[in-house]
Amino acid sequence: MTNLGSLGPTGPARLEAAARSAMSGHVYDYIATGSGVEETLAANEAAWRDLLLRPRVLRDVTTVDTSTTVLGTPVSAPVLVAPTGYQRLVHPEGEVGMAAGSARAGSLLTLSTRATVTFEELVEVSGPWWLQLYILRDRGLTETIVQRAAAAGARALVLTVDTPYVARKARRTPFPPDVVSPVLVPELQARDDKGVWQDPGVTVADLAWLAEISGLPLVVKGVLRGDEARACVDAGAAAIWVSNHGGRQLDGVVPTATALAEVRAAVPEEVEVYVDGGLRTGRDVLRALALGATATFVGRPAVWALATEGAAGVHDLLVSLRAELEEAMALAGCRTVAEVAPDLLHP
Amino acid sequence: MTNLGSLGPTGPARLEAAARSAMSGHVYDYIATGSGVEETLAANEAAWRDLLLRPRVLRDVTTVDTSTTVLGTPVSAPVLVAPTGYQRLVHPEGEVGMAAGSARAGSLLTLSTRATVTFEELVEVSGPWWLQLYILRDRGLTETIVQRAAAAGARALVLTVDTPYVARKARRTPFPPDVVSPVLVPELQARDDKGVWQDPGVTVADLAWLAEISGLPLVVKGVLRGDEARACVDAGAAAIWVSNHGGRQLDGVVPTATALAEVRAAVPEEVEVYVDGGLRTGRDVLRALALGATATFVGRPAVWALATEGAAGVHDLLVSLRAELEEAMALAGCRTVAEVAPDLLHP
Amino acid sequence: MTNLGSLGPTGPARLEAAARSAMSGHVYDYIATGSGVEETLAANEAAWRDLLLRPRVLRDVTTVDTSTTVLGTPVSAPVLVAPTGYQRLVHPEGEVGMAAGSARAGSLLTLSTRATVTFEELVEVSGPWWLQLYILRDRGLTETIVQRAAAAGARALVLTVDTPYVARKARRTPFPPDVVSPVLVPELQARDDKGVWQDPGVTVADLAWLAEISGLPLVVKGVLRGDEARACVDAGAAAIWVSNHGGRQLDGVVPTATALAEVRAAVPEEVEVYVDGGLRTGRDVLRALALGATATFVGRPAVWALATEGAAGVHDLLVSLRAELEEAMALAGCRTVAEVAPDLLHP
Amino acid sequence: MTNLGSLGPTGPARLEAAARSAMSGHVYDYIATGSGVEETLAANEAAWRDLLLRPRVLRDVTTVDTSTTVLGTPVSAPVLVAPTGYQRLVHPEGEVGMAAGSARAGSLLTLSTRATVTFEELVEVSGPWWLQLYILRDRGLTETIVQRAAAAGARALVLTVDTPYVARKARRTPFPPDVVSPVLVPELQARDDKGVWQDPGVTVADLAWLAEISGLPLVVKGVLRGDEARACVDAGAAAIWVSNHGGRQLDGVVPTATALAEVRAAVPEEVEVYVDGGLRTGRDVLRALALGATATFVGRPAVWALATEGAAGVHDLLVSLRAELEEAMALAGCRTVAEVAPDLLHP
Ligand SMILES: Cc1cc2nc3c(=O)[nH]c(=O)nc-3n(C[C@H](O)[C@H](O)[C@H](O)COP(=O)(O)O)c2cc1C
Ligand SMILES: Cc1cc2nc3c(=O)[nH]c(=O)nc-3n(C[C@H](O)[C@H](O)[C@H](O)COP(=O)(O)O)c2cc1C
Ligand SMILES: Cc1cc2nc3c(=O)[nH]c(=O)nc-3n(C[C@H](O)[C@H](O)[C@H](O)COP(=O)(O)O)c2cc1C
Ligand SMILES: Cc1cc2nc3c(=O)[nH]c(=O)nc-3n(C[C@H](O)[C@H](O)[C@H](O)COP(=O)(O)O)c2cc1C
Repeated sequence: MTNLGSLGPTGPARLEAAARSAMSGHVYDYIATGSGVEETLAANEAAWRDLLLRPRVLRDVTTVDTSTTVLGTPVSAPVLVAPTGYQRLVHPEGEVGMAAGSARAGSLLTLSTRATVTFEELVEVSGPWWLQLYILRDRGLTETIVQRAAAAGARALVLTVDTPYVARKARRTPFPPDVVSPVLVPELQARDDKGVWQDPGVTVADLAWLAEISGLPLVVKGVLRGDEARACVDAGAAAIWVSNHGGRQLDGVVPTATALAEVRAAVPEEVEVYVDGGLRTGRDVLRALALGATATFVGRPAVWALATEGAAGVHDLLVSLRAELEEAMALAGCRTVAEVAPDLLHP
Repeated sequence: MTNLGSLGPTGPARLEAAARSAMSGHVYDYIATGSGVEETLAANEAAWRDLLLRPRVLRDVTTVDTSTTVLGTPVSAPVLVAPTGYQRLVHPEGEVGMAAGSARAGSLLTLSTRATVTFEELVEVSGPWWLQLYILRDRGLTETIVQRAAAAGARALVLTVDTPYVARKARRTPFPPDVVSPVLVPELQARDDKGVWQDPGVTVADLAWLAEISGLPLVVKGVLRGDEARACVDAGAAAIWVSNHGGRQLDGVVPTATALAEVRAAVPEEVEVYVDGGLRTGRDVLRALALGATATFVGRPAVWALATEGAAGVHDLLVSLRAELEEAMALAGCRTVAEVAPDLLHP
Repeated sequence: MTNLGSLGPTGPARLEAAARSAMSGHVYDYIATGSGVEETLAANEAAWRDLLLRPRVLRDVTTVDTSTTVLGTPVSAPVLVAPTGYQRLVHPEGEVGMAAGSARAGSLLTLSTRATVTFEELVEVSGPWWLQLYILRDRGLTETIVQRAAAAGARALVLTVDTPYVARKARRTPFPPDVVSPVLVPELQARDDKGVWQDPGVTVADLAWLAEISGLPLVVKGVLRGDEARACVDAGAAAIWVSNHGGRQLDGVVPTATALAEVRAAVPEEVEVYVDGGLRTGRDVLRALALGATATFVGRPAVWALATEGAAGVHDLLVSLRAELEEAMALAGCRTVAEVAPDLLHP
Repeated sequence: MTNLGSLGPTGPARLEAAARSAMSGHVYDYIATGSGVEETLAANEAAWRDLLLRPRVLRDVTTVDTSTTVLGTPVSAPVLVAPTGYQRLVHPEGEVGMAAGSARAGSLLTLSTRATVTFEELVEVSGPWWLQLYILRDRGLTETIVQRAAAAGARALVLTVDTPYVARKARRTPFPPDVVSPVLVPELQARDDKGVWQDPGVTVADLAWLAEISGLPLVVKGVLRGDEARACVDAGAAAIWVSNHGGRQLDGVVPTATALAEVRAAVPEEVEVYVDGGLRTGRDVLRALALGATATFVGRPAVWALATEGAAGVHDLLVSLRAELEEAMALAGCRTVAEVAPDLLHP
């Protein structure tokens, strides 16, 4: 197995504590908060822990290989970076640090529409990356963003569909100031009107439009139901990303561990299914794979890591999670990601 | 969507804290208490939270409309005011403040038989209202109340059936003094005998009598079983109000979220079904609608709001809950109350 | 309804606190303790609370009658006194106080084989009573006890079958000294040998022997399974008493609320079934009746009441529980004990 | 019944507290810790407690016999000693003390591959014992160990299969120093290379090899699934030991109480099935027997006992657990281990 990262089992909790003391209370709250009364925030983590593992034994696990591919892109492990906005809030390197750390760990980055970096800055340091897209009320501007992303090398578009409006958060911290610039594209910078808000009128028909203007495969992020996943696939989605926005949009929804099995069962086998929300250990990743996920994404842990040590912190987090997954696979008798299967979970 | 009210997600809890410090311990306890050992008081709130939502995505939710009707009366949202007695205990405006706040929010008021206001005072400020009725041992007096209510413009009679006797409360605070006057009708004021107590001998046959003397549609409040709901409908009830009196009557009963589905399934589709008990957020309201409720009512939150800021507080609470419902509907992909359906709940 | 007793909903907890401060720590521990790690002690109370009630409405509950009979003896309510040993430990009146308080409340007393009173003292003050019997290793002495009890007016024999050995308790307090005298019969007083211990060799065949030497109906106490209950009935038992000795014998067994339904279903309808263990409110009693119990018994609450105020305390406790039952029946729409039925419980 | 041991119901918890104050924090943590975030460590104990007992009554339990056999070896009770490494860490007597205490209690010892004692020292004091084996990367050395064990009188080989790699622990204490010597065989002492690590390449085919070189019956330890147990039996295992290494290997797996029934059902009746993990009372042992275990093993409790009072402590623990089992059997109406059956458990 690879050398273990330095974070250890209690890494995520310690990371969060370290990050917390490295930032203002307002910024910490902005990242940590969930919406509503934070039911879903808590439920996400608990739902992974509730899944009991059934390890195989007496397999030859001399070598364990965590590598896999997402939409054809090879990654060192199915532990990828979820999009989170305004990363310069927590560290001067912002998205550049996140991209560099992710690249060095062999992972894949999802860049938020609300990034505080330009495509040009990003591509200098980044490994493979996808653009997370909000369709803005200003459709022309949306088109600009999509086409620049494609030109800059984005390998897929991730359309987030759980945020027609930004939900009210539990910790009603005023949005931390002075974060408007720099932004993804210069056209966004000058704008302070509702045209740059998410368009609440987006429908499934917009998937075809996006595919056409970008030429990129489409991932739909924020799906929690089998029937909705199926409809997205029928409308052209290449992959489904099961997410409740880390408990930041509609509070009280099913935890993603619960939704994952339903979504996996509803779409054809060749459609990749990803999941995020409350994944904190390599064992959680193993559970997600056993439920049929192609890969998993982490949100807050990556932000805490960036806040604490910039690119190096992000790298260490991802390597540590990969090492934990490797250990978990070995102890469950799985040599490859392909060998992870539903029999590993207690019904 | 409308502008959000100012209370925010943690509004109800903060309201209660504010109200608590605005009143004497005795009065606070009188309102907050449940009966028995307060099992049901706690269970009501928990039961809503236990219902997991399954949002739809990619619906055009540019406009979301929370308005609906109850027994033909239009209301701005299915968040209405439950009857609570003795409102002058908590604020000098008493029921007048409650009515005014409710009216300005486009909601509907249920006036308690134990109101500390006359019909004349009420109608001056009130929007649409119903009279909650206890059939008193003195049937003549009951008839007087019912007929005055009808004459004053009550749009329905709500017969409370869970209180043949007033249950002993957990917090055994002596009933706060000096609240006997003023009352609904002058005939009540002079009386201090058992004739003004609830009649424990009321049966389903009395529904016909009430309909006859009032000419008003009858809502039966305090039903927790399908078979009982059905019997009420067969005896002439126009609507069923699922309630356990906010955990103040028989302690240890099913939470209303549990009872609602059974009741909804037991009565014909055209019979409206309401619910109260432990509803604290717009998401709880969405859950109730998804279980088939026509509308929901709030008890203690409205009292806390009245205590804190009188009519303005009541208005703000109702607007805030409506805004939360609007947000929840948008994030669940529902444009209208009619679009809310059982598929929104995890089985 | 009758006047309510003075204890109120939080009576049992307050009683225990009062009793605790009225006695030495050793004596308190001796009574409060469960066996093992007290899993069953806690589970008994929780299991009643977990049963959700489904009240009927719109019944005429002007009068509610809690009276019933046990093996033909009329009692004012199905809330009776379980046998507990060594009652002079907690109050100088001991069993005499317990009997007097019970008699005045119209209840029925079960006298323990380990009583600190003679039959002669008891019958002076007691209402109807049963003798709880341990078959001792000295069968001759057992016969003496049984026959004196019958002669003194015991209306039934309650054979406790869950105590072939006395289980080790969680709170390992030394047994409080100076409690050996006085005892049930003079023959027990002089004895300090193993002949006065419970006989661990008792079998179902001994029921016939007991019936023969006593001429009394037999109740078997300490049964938690349907098959075992059935076997006792086949061997001549007139009634089954579902009990786990208040969590003082085998720890980790099913709570009595769980066992009751199984036992009730396993024996013919005409066989009475009683239950004890963790019943603390009138609502718990209603739940037990709804599960098919003919009557319920209280152990520790009666001891706390005796400790606090002697016979008067016992009387007040029993009247208070009866009043709570009366209230619960009224609020559930039941006029008589016979009207309490399984439909009152959520499945 | 035998005289009860001196530890009593709260023995295990008090033992751990006593041991904790008798050793350095590092050593305590090394023994107490689980892997990951200690989900399984907690779940093991809870899972036993969740199994509710259904006692039989009116059996003649004048004599209760806890004795049984494991692979033909008679033991005084089905409460045996699990292998734990490096016992000289906690007490100078180390494995010699463990063996002596176990022998005097009529129990059976499992010696760890990571023992700090030689076979020669052991056999001087030990009663019947088995060798727990890790197949090391150096297969020749493995063969040496196995053959010396067989020669020294081991009655079975216990192959641990849940540890191809040593999992990272929650309490990241550095491994306490100066414990490398003395060791099982001199050949291990001189070695500090990876050859003495567990071989992660072990497969089911190695069972035949081990049987051949040792001539001993094989027990496979660390199985949590029926299908895997069956495969081991098909490959020649004489018995299956259900274990998750006391929550020290893959964290988040099924508790052993859950896995036991599945494993028992999957292998032929004549194959013995053992279980360890979180067993702390005689009642837990009874529960395991009722689920079909032939015998149970204790890990940490035995280490705490050794740490506190050496061989005498181990003896007292085992006698106490036997006495608790005896009591539990008597109170459940079981005279012999053979009489313990699934009907004792609530489904
Ligand atoms: C501070 C923060 C900002 C986020 N910003 C975005 C965003 O701009 N676009 C998006 O699709 N998701 C966003 N998310 C959601 C994440 O992509 C992801 O779904 C979520 O964080 C996963 O849950 P976790 O934080 O428990 O790992 C954000 C999450 C957080 C915590
Ligand atoms: C202080 C107080 C007084 C109440 N008075 C009445 C009343 O007079 N008539 C009635 O039908 N319900 C009464 N209720 C019950 C409410 O109408 C309603 O069923 C309950 O409060 C809903 O639960 P919630 O408080 O959790 O929202 C009262 C409730 C409270 C808290
Ligand atoms: C201090 C004490 C002494 C007891 N002594 C006896 C006894 O002598 N005989 C018997 O059959 N049960 C005895 N019991 C058990 C009770 O009869 C009854 O089953 C139990 O207390 C009911 O549970 P509760 O205390 O939760 O009401 C005793 C219980 C306690 C608490
Ligand atoms: C400190 C410690 C060392 C252990 N060493 C070994 C070992 O060398 N080989 C092995 O097979 N199991 C080992 N185990 C696991 C035990 O054999 C056993 O499976 C586990 O302790 C049972 O759980 P319990 O501690 O809750 O009783 C060890 C456990 C502990 C706590």
